[in-house]
This record gives sequence, structure tokens and C-alpha cells, in this order.
Amino acid sequence: MKIGRLNHVGIATPDIEATKAMYATLYGADRATETKDFPHLGVRVCFVSLENSELELLEPLGEASPVHKFLERNPKGGQHHVCFEVDDIITARDTMRARGATVLGTGEPYIGAHGVPVIFVHPKNSDGVLVELMQKPDHD
Amino acid sequence: MKIGRLNHVGIATPDIEATKAMYATLYGADRATETKDFPHLGVRVCFVSLENSELELLEPLGEASPVHKFLERNPKGGQHHVCFEVDDIITARDTMRARGATVLGTGEPYIGAHGVPVIFVHPKNSDGVLVELMQKPDHD
Repeated sequence: MKIGRLNHVGIATPDIEATKAMYATLYGADRATETKDFPHLGVRVCFVSLENSELELLEPLGEASPVHKFLERNPKGGQHHVCFEVDDIITARDTMRARGATVLGTGEPYIGAHGVPVIFVHPKNSDGVLVELMQKPDHD
Repeated sequence: MKIGRLNHVGIATPDIEATKAMYATLYGADRATETKDFPHLGVRVCFVSLENSELELLEPLGEASPVHKFLERNPKGGQHHVCFEVDDIITARDTMRARGATVLGTGEPYIGAHGVPVIFVHPKNSDGVLVELMQKPDHD
């Protein structure tokens, strides 16, 4: 099992619209999706397109949000996770476990904001970095 | 001024060889450069290649290293910065300032680990994310 593309960098923010506007006005990165609420994931999400990858902006929806605690420690926001593509999410999940890593939650892949199944690997296994693995979406 | 490619994600680690080995054995990301010391930058660096981008692993060289304080707050390591390519570093620097952002240090671009000039923009301007801007290297 080998990871493929760096699909996105996940960035937590207390105000997703302000952060989206900042990337457009300060950095000229003005190709972004509409912000969507994902109540079952506990986040509001939009994607800022770059030439070769994306930034995933994340604002917590409610205090049970996985991003809520991150913002308690980092009130201004910051880099939250990196997401790598894999060919098959079940193979990836089983390989992570066979290699001794801890998959978060039940370990059952669930549909993330991109509409494809994902898992998260515990940061303790990746030297402090929270890693999302995403089944490879169909790229244009 | 528009940013271009996401050149790399900078990841701080207390043990660069262990982190490089982890990306190879856990994630199959086994295309990495030799680790090099950059005493004038205060870091040891290697790059882990992904299909569309890179991870830049950073271990501090000495207590004056810019990565040293980060590891005091995050002893296991973690995501340190993101780096975007720009066409011209002087134009980018001047545009950042004209748009109200704080460029770190003197603001004079200096040669980074990729051999091209870079600047850093203060995280307060990018909602908690430390942003490196790099003059576009020649891609193959």
C-alpha cells in the first residue's frame, strides 16, 4: 500500500468565510467552492483550489465537532491535517492496522466532504501529524 | 499576484531520519532525498516526494532554530507551514506588504532548501497558518 496524491491540506478556522476571503484577497487564490454544512461530520467545509492540490477549510459545527478542540488550543486556526489519496480505502485501513497504526473511531470508512470514503490515522503514528486517507476520487 | 502550486507542506520533527523511515514503511512514501544540514537556516531538511507535491521534513539544528520553539510546543512534531509557488518573489513580497501583511525577518528573500528565494508571511495574516512563498523552481 502506497499513498498517492496529496489531495488537500486541512485548515481549521473559527470563521470560514473570512478565511476564504483572505485566501482570495491576500493570495489571489479565488477559486473556492460554496461553503457547505456537514452536520454528521460536525463541520462546515469549503475547498480552495490550487494548481495541483486544494486547501480544505474547516469551521466547527457545534461543540462536539472534531475541530472544536483544535480551535480551543489554536484559537486563530491553523493546519489541522493532511489528506493523501489511496487506491482502495479498505485495503488502506487493513494495511494501516497490519503495520501497527491506530485508525480513529470504529475504523469503518465513512463518506467525507469529497463524497468518497475516508479514514483518519492517529497522529501518534505519524509523528504528530493527523493523516486522512481518502479513496481516490475521479479526477478530471 | 496569485499563488501557484502547493510546493510542499513543512513538517517539523524531533528525529528526521525516524520520520522519513515512518513515511516509507507506514505509508509507502519511499522516494525521499538525502537529509542535508542547512546551518544558516537552522534546520536539517529532506523532501518526501508525492505524486503531485512534497513533504518537507524539518529537524532543528541548534536552539536558535526557527523549528526549535515549535517543537517545544509540539514535542512529537507536526505541521509547521505550507509553501506556495509564486512567479516572482520580489513582486510577491511587495504585494504582500501592499496588501497589509507582515513579511518575517528583514523581508529580503533568501535562498531556501530548494535553492530558490523564499519569504515567510506571518501566521497572523493567514488565520494561524505560517505561509512560505517560493519563487517557482524549474519543474521537469
